[in-house]
Amino acid sequence: MNIHPTAIISGKAKIGKNVTIGAYTVVYDNVDIGDGSVIESFCELGVANSLSGSDVLTIGANAHIRSHSIFYEGSQFDSSLVTGHRVTVREKTKAGKNFQIGTLSDIQGHCEIGDYVRTHSNVHIGQHSKIGDFVWIFPYVVLTNDPTPPSNVMQGVVVDNFAVIATMSVILPGAHISEGCLIGAHSCLSGRTEKDTIYTGSPAKAIGCTSKLKLKDGTRRPAYPWRKHFTRGYPEHIVQEWIKEF
Amino acid sequence: MNIHPTAIISGKAKIGKNVTIGAYTVVYDNVDIGDGSVIESFCELGVANSLSGSDVLTIGANAHIRSHSIFYEGSQFDSSLVTGHRVTVREKTKAGKNFQIGTLSDIQGHCEIGDYVRTHSNVHIGQHSKIGDFVWIFPYVVLTNDPTPPSNVMQGVVVDNFAVIATMSVILPGAHISEGCLIGAHSCLSGRTEKDTIYTGSPAKAIGCTSKLKLKDGTRRPAYPWRKHFTRGYPEHIVQEWIKEF
Amino acid sequence: MNIHPTAIISGKAKIGKNVTIGAYTVVYDNVDIGDGSVIESFCELGVANSLSGSDVLTIGANAHIRSHSIFYEGSQFDSSLVTGHRVTVREKTKAGKNFQIGTLSDIQGHCEIGDYVRTHSNVHIGQHSKIGDFVWIFPYVVLTNDPTPPSNVMQGVVVDNFAVIATMSVILPGAHISEGCLIGAHSCLSGRTEKDTIYTGSPAKAIGCTSKLKLKDGTRRPAYPWRKHFTRGYPEHIVQEWIKEF
Repeated sequence: MNIHPTAIISGKAKIGKNVTIGAYTVVYDNVDIGDGSVIESFCELGVANSLSGSDVLTIGANAHIRSHSIFYEGSQFDSSLVTGHRVTVREKTKAGKNFQIGTLSDIQGHCEIGDYVRTHSNVHIGQHSKIGDFVWIFPYVVLTNDPTPPSNVMQGVVVDNFAVIATMSVILPGAHISEGCLIGAHSCLSGRTEKDTIYTGSPAKAIGCTSKLKLKDGTRRPAYPWRKHFTRGYPEHIVQEWIKEF
Repeated sequence: MNIHPTAIISGKAKIGKNVTIGAYTVVYDNVDIGDGSVIESFCELGVANSLSGSDVLTIGANAHIRSHSIFYEGSQFDSSLVTGHRVTVREKTKAGKNFQIGTLSDIQGHCEIGDYVRTHSNVHIGQHSKIGDFVWIFPYVVLTNDPTPPSNVMQGVVVDNFAVIATMSVILPGAHISEGCLIGAHSCLSGRTEKDTIYTGSPAKAIGCTSKLKLKDGTRRPAYPWRKHFTRGYPEHIVQEWIKEF
Repeated sequence: MNIHPTAIISGKAKIGKNVTIGAYTVVYDNVDIGDGSVIESFCELGVANSLSGSDVLTIGANAHIRSHSIFYEGSQFDSSLVTGHRVTVREKTKAGKNFQIGTLSDIQGHCEIGDYVRTHSNVHIGQHSKIGDFVWIFPYVVLTNDPTPPSNVMQGVVVDNFAVIATMSVILPGAHISEGCLIGAHSCLSGRTEKDTIYTGSPAKAIGCTSKLKLKDGTRRPAYPWRKHFTRGYPEHIVQEWIKEF
């Protein structure tokens, strides 16, 4: 273990083997950090909250949480969580393996998130969002949930596997983004989408199949499904499955 | 008082009774914190600034300022201020009771803000904004002020009582949002609005009266005025007034 | 020198004369801070990164880096850098004199930035952006780079001298904003623009010459080129050149 002397770690927190904790980080009581994880400086893990039901914050093995990040108690992350700086994660969210959360992103809590989901910077995931596996969410996207704000109704957004939401789009309450869809930059989407379809505009409309988009690398190969050409950071056994698919 | 030993508090700051201050927080000279307030970790209160006229930062009683927040000297908050994490508040702003500022929001200074105003995450309030009472501002909304950027002209936005601005809308310089209006998500609004009217789109246009929107809770009751059905967190005497209104 | 006793400064870092470093700031090995610079509290300078090629983070003389900011190793800033709070700057960016970076802004790295560039709050500059001199970028603007996300293709945005990008606009991959252009608020721009032209909407279209916009200060003088009337913060010898131009 490699705990910086200025870190403040509760004696009640459970810290795995070979965990590194940076300068001035605070770990509260109700936290379980998996083996091999790195928690950088100025973080707070396990912030107590009346809505968390006193559940533990569980960070799986081999996580890397970058500096200035804040996690409340009561959420669970499978192995290999990676975050940018200054992320905020509230209570009662459950995420799968290799979740990557971009700098400044805010996971509002009560979300279900699959494996290998990646958000870029400054993404806001509203409460009760349900996100599948291998989803990509680009900068400044907001997933909303209240159809008539302010109200007590929460209609979380659903995002299916392999979907992509481009920069600065708003996904309206109750929208359901189907597998393999691409939501274009600066769109405002509501309702249910068709699979493997591009939606763009405000309000967003279907403008065709994702298969019509070509890579801009000179090859003019199809850009979607993106797993045909983009495999950086995914484990070899998954990439092998993707190769067999096509 | 419950001041963490790592907090750095100026001897010149005025700290009320029963104030709690978290780890690694810095309180500068020109600060007055009201009784019963909680200031979490990694905050800075009373940052000196040449534009503040050396005025005191006054935080009323029973505030709760969450971690990593930064307040400049020279602003005043009435009782029961509540903030999310990492808020930034500049000089010469004056806000009423129970102001709630969401995580990452940025109050640029020189603003007038009424009672019971709530901003959600990542809201940007430009200088010289004037906001009434019981206003709601949702994530990633920006209130601007410069009609021909960059210039020295500042036309702050005005938002009247009970108005609601939904996610990721831009309010252009000098716009005046009237009482009870709803500005839809992802809109870009200029000019003066009619009361109790829905505006949406970019540029935003009136699309009807707020009274036509129904709650999505199965009852089909009217969703607006929202105070008819949404009363969470408001004091009982105010809720009683609202009940009498209708 | 004025180093706060709680600051943690690597013995390998090169710290200039008359440098001030605030409470709880961490300076890592690979950093060179110019004379007369002020680094406020809770910052991290020189974060190590596998993509930085172990290059030094060079902060020119007379910088002012506000609190909670994070700079990776491997970027270079000429003199008089000024930042807001909580900025993030990644590796391999090179910026000229007097670069001003607004609160919460995120410079993703591998960018070339000229002299006297100013970003307001919460601006996101994607990798491989090229920005000229005297450019203004207003709050919540995103400069993107991936034409078919996710892919390995990076088409950085180019912004020429004196251009202005207003609030919450998305600049699509490979866009080229020509000298003196104004991109209106809440726009989504692609392609190459004409000089001194206003583009607005989503998708953004040319709506006329910038010269047709008048200052809203009662004088009805032209608002653009902005350097005809807005000179605050620029050095006298540059302002004198601007006066001679017209």
